[in-house]
Amino acid sequence: MKRLLIIGIGAGDPDHLTLQAAKAIAATDVFFVVDKGEVKHELVQLRQDLIQEHGRPPYRIAEARDPERDRSAPGYTAAVEDWRARRALACEALIAEELAEGQTGAFLVWGDPGVYDSTLAIVEEILERGNVTFDYEVIPGISSVAALTARHRTSLTQVGRPVHLTTGRRLAEQGATADDLLVMLDAHCSFAGLDDFHIYWGAYLGTPDEILVSGPVADVGDRIRRLRAEARTRKGWIMDTYLLRRTDPADR
Amino acid sequence: MKRLLIIGIGAGDPDHLTLQAAKAIAATDVFFVVDKGEVKHELVQLRQDLIQEHGRPPYRIAEARDPERDRSAPGYTAAVEDWRARRALACEALIAEELAEGQTGAFLVWGDPGVYDSTLAIVEEILERGNVTFDYEVIPGISSVAALTARHRTSLTQVGRPVHLTTGRRLAEQGATADDLLVMLDAHCSFAGLDDFHIYWGAYLGTPDEILVSGPVADVGDRIRRLRAEARTRKGWIMDTYLLRRTDPADR
Repeated sequence: MKRLLIIGIGAGDPDHLTLQAAKAIAATDVFFVVDKGEVKHELVQLRQDLIQEHGRPPYRIAEARDPERDRSAPGYTAAVEDWRARRALACEALIAEELAEGQTGAFLVWGDPGVYDSTLAIVEEILERGNVTFDYEVIPGISSVAALTARHRTSLTQVGRPVHLTTGRRLAEQGATADDLLVMLDAHCSFAGLDDFHIYWGAYLGTPDEILVSGPVADVGDRIRRLRAEARTRKGWIMDTYLLRRTDPADR
Repeated sequence: MKRLLIIGIGAGDPDHLTLQAAKAIAATDVFFVVDKGEVKHELVQLRQDLIQEHGRPPYRIAEARDPERDRSAPGYTAAVEDWRARRALACEALIAEELAEGQTGAFLVWGDPGVYDSTLAIVEEILERGNVTFDYEVIPGISSVAALTARHRTSLTQVGRPVHLTTGRRLAEQGATADDLLVMLDAHCSFAGLDDFHIYWGAYLGTPDEILVSGPVADVGDRIRRLRAEARTRKGWIMDTYLLRRTDPADR
């Protein structure tokens, strides 16, 4: 039987790695890497460093090219699912051709594999297609959610209160659906105008380029927008997330 | 200056510890332990094991007794805040009396310090009172949320969709507020009757006693209720959490 590990490697700080993840990397024969060819940003290097530091030779790295995602498509979910189907084909080929029976392959996933990541869905899709069989295991990781709140020394949740994890797209469409919102995948600073909220924003969390800003949206919103645009231009990519907390919830 | 570390140590598996947390434990002079005197369950032993394995002597362990929380009080938030205020006093005394200037103290927190944990609020309360000053840092940990979804090999989030983190109490009061809900602190199996949901339930996550059950609520709800009651009686305590996912969301 082939064995596959989906390993959460944390939000960007190499020390986010858990002992479990370090052991999983050490147990891996083949690391699968599916990358966008053009974007060679620091996270790619950092992932290679993690493999080099914790991998136990002999191991191999098997690469495939990530299919392009049509980010201008009107149907977001459909576009993602189409991209995911094509990415699943690329991963299926890797597992079929690069991993021998009895060997262990691994995908290293930024953050936690359960938080807005496609790897688990891709693995399920490959298994459903039935062209290749394997057993698999998921190793949890420090998500950007945990990294963000830790760096801001604040809590994701408040006593007895819910928090909504959502996307920038949803926030833009639906507005603030709760007093506490954790927003991911927001390319458009959809917090604009939410002037009764406090924002805890972070970019490049856990890396030397980390940027943290917090304060009332009305006070710091413009600064975040400017910092974000500058950083994105300077580095060519950005990963950021933020927590919104209503300043004065009605029901307290 | 005194320095305080609030260290997330994961959901129950000693290998959930991050490299960052292991280094933080090694940098600690005094570990602060605030426990309910009567409950000496396995997690207390596990925490001691983590200190023993990763602590760098000489270190000390300073203990205080946790104040009782009135769990029958009608106002849940008020009861928690009262308990927290008294716990803050106990912690303030520990930091004032047991930690010297220039030393590093630590609280080890199960899961992630940002997810339904009181330590951060207590630290803020102590600083606001102003009787003792210190700098502090938060080390993120593997939350029971990440542990649960990893063990069930499922994702917390679905493509472009929100997920609500909430409590059993809120779920019982408000019903299912989303197609995807992560429920914590539920002593009453408030998933009962949510027959259009699939449940991924886990108890004692990451420990040798771990129990996992998943399936449609209508099919497995009774089994979870029975297993939960049996385990709680057998062990004298339980920590569990679950993900609810609507089987057939209306807007897909």
